[in-house]
Amino acid sequence: MTETMTPESRTAVEATQATGPVTLINCFVVPEDRDEAFQALWTEASTYFRARPGYVSLRLHRAVTPGAAYRWVNVARWESQADYLAAHATDEFRRLVTQAAWQEFPNVPTLYEVVAADG
Amino acid sequence: MTETMTPESRTAVEATQATGPVTLINCFVVPEDRDEAFQALWTEASTYFRARPGYVSLRLHRAVTPGAAYRWVNVARWESQADYLAAHATDEFRRLVTQAAWQEFPNVPTLYEVVAADG
Repeated sequence: MTETMTPESRTAVEATQATGPVTLINCFVVPEDRDEAFQALWTEASTYFRARPGYVSLRLHRAVTPGAAYRWVNVARWESQADYLAAHATDEFRRLVTQAAWQEFPNVPTLYEVVAADG
Repeated sequence: MTETMTPESRTAVEATQATGPVTLINCFVVPEDRDEAFQALWTEASTYFRARPGYVSLRLHRAVTPGAAYRWVNVARWESQADYLAAHATDEFRRLVTQAAWQEFPNVPTLYEVVAADG
């Protein structure tokens, strides 16, 4: 992933059909010696998202498997795709993700629906 | 991903340091018109895993974002890496994942630890 990350590339592309709850799985490229810098940036952004309408929950994961392509993954639930998109269409979101420090950590955000759950 | 998938490549590489609970994030490549075949295979495998010691929970996700590289993602919690690895070291696991039908669906399994959780 060599292109410059923009606010748009930091946001999952809108699906034409997505009615119920959605789960964001956001995969980050983070060098092994940059965990602290990444987590500080991510925590700042998550404080913003957790206060937005429709936010449900999050779990931030760090890889224990050696050589993982995406060493950090955030799994966040939203009440709807509309809520997720609204949270990504504000000036505050744009301010957060256009910070130069984020360029070091490319990410792949994808929205999912839950098809099966157990436990 | 062009190489042949083997039971070993279907299992996250062992981490030398992983004590507490782990979360498997298993990303699958599934063509849009093959969801039904994938889900049938996955359901068979998940029935096996759900009965293994140390299994905690799972959520199977299907992408709503257009063009997702990994259209299906399973997020499964295990009490420990040791439990996860033990479930992947049996003859039954080998029988399940060496079925020819699985070759159509390459996957990337990675184990994570939860660093932050909310909601």
